[in-house]
Amino acid sequence: MTAKIRLYVEHPLGPGQSVPLTREQAHYLFGVMRLSVGRQVALFNGQDGEWLSDVAEASKRGGLLSCAEQTKPLQLPPDLWLLFAPIKKARTDFIVEKAAEMGAARIMPVQTGFTNSERIRQDRLQAHAVEAAEQCGGTFVPEVTELQRLDRVLDAWPEDRQLMFCDEAEVGSALRLAENEPGQPWAILIGPEGGFSDHERKRLKALPYAHVVSLGPRILRADTAAVAAMTMWQQALGDWS
Amino acid sequence: MTAKIRLYVEHPLGPGQSVPLTREQAHYLFGVMRLSVGRQVALFNGQDGEWLSDVAEASKRGGLLSCAEQTKPLQLPPDLWLLFAPIKKARTDFIVEKAAEMGAARIMPVQTGFTNSERIRQDRLQAHAVEAAEQCGGTFVPEVTELQRLDRVLDAWPEDRQLMFCDEAEVGSALRLAENEPGQPWAILIGPEGGFSDHERKRLKALPYAHVVSLGPRILRADTAAVAAMTMWQQALGDWS
Repeated sequence: MTAKIRLYVEHPLGPGQSVPLTREQAHYLFGVMRLSVGRQVALFNGQDGEWLSDVAEASKRGGLLSCAEQTKPLQLPPDLWLLFAPIKKARTDFIVEKAAEMGAARIMPVQTGFTNSERIRQDRLQAHAVEAAEQCGGTFVPEVTELQRLDRVLDAWPEDRQLMFCDEAEVGSALRLAENEPGQPWAILIGPEGGFSDHERKRLKALPYAHVVSLGPRILRADTAAVAAMTMWQQALGDWS
Repeated sequence: MTAKIRLYVEHPLGPGQSVPLTREQAHYLFGVMRLSVGRQVALFNGQDGEWLSDVAEASKRGGLLSCAEQTKPLQLPPDLWLLFAPIKKARTDFIVEKAAEMGAARIMPVQTGFTNSERIRQDRLQAHAVEAAEQCGGTFVPEVTELQRLDRVLDAWPEDRQLMFCDEAEVGSALRLAENEPGQPWAILIGPEGGFSDHERKRLKALPYAHVVSLGPRILRADTAAVAAMTMWQQALGDWS
């Protein structure tokens, strides 16, 4: 039997391990969800899998959970980065949530020539990734990096990492993803709403590790494109098979 | 050259055709977007393709556009229905928007055993589908039907329409979509957040036209599942190839 409430904690998990709760976590479990001593919560920390725990102490300001048994081993997602240009707040939140659900290992907001946002709230986006992991039953939480300039990310690009790049100006050049070896490091880059600049497009196309992919005849919003591109990749090379 | 503003109108479009504007459309074009006489707008009505039109008259309460030339032929999406159980308002809106972007021909909210919503605002959802079509460059607007009970929809199911059904309780039975003939009528059914009831699952599995599909090892939210399932279908059998 699995507990219905799943909670991400930053604490080691193991047999008999006690896990202290922050004030926020205690408020959620005991105030909002009305749990009392003896009830069960599923815990994960991104490293030790999922553990069923019992509420050992409960107060308004804190509490203690006690690990009972491991209910899932750690399941790492494939080595897939999702790079995207931040858009309106709600849709940026959405992309981060979807990336975590779809099994990205790392989420990287990038600033392109036509990106409007000059800053993001990394802490808030990371919290969305945690919430999505709690929701989707995963045992891993992808890291959300700080906003970086796309050109600098490409300057430092690891040569062995393939890059799937979705461009609405590109039609018909469907990526033969399945022709690639599985198990390699990959990244998906979703362009900004205004598209890539000519300079960026030229540079991206010239990269030896870049693969252009078309996402159909309609122009997809960036958040739709992110889910669609990750679906294509997960089916062909990821953990959906 | 294509005009940047795309507008859906319920009026015939053709060479020299005059198109009167509603008060709302006039407010949007002349108030919000500040267009004046002589400027251009792309029009589509779901039947006659896309037409470039000139603003012939502009006032606060109305206006007249005059069709100049056809810029796109009508492009119908594949014969794909998207059935889904309505969830929280924002996510229901989102599913309708995504279904229109991804190329569903018809969007059908269905009430299942575990669906919370007992009503939807069909007019508001239809408006979301129109807005998504304006945004994604499509020339077709999918119809959003009224909320219907899933069991009644299945009672009246057309025998020649295949049904792709996504169930989180199902693991590993990846659909061999590409083994099917292209050009057939299809539907995708996305389950509610609480999953299907045992009764529903049993009935769905017994249907001769049903195909169960797995969407990977993580539990996807209904809105994510809708985009992922449509991506799989469009790639294998739709207009993405």
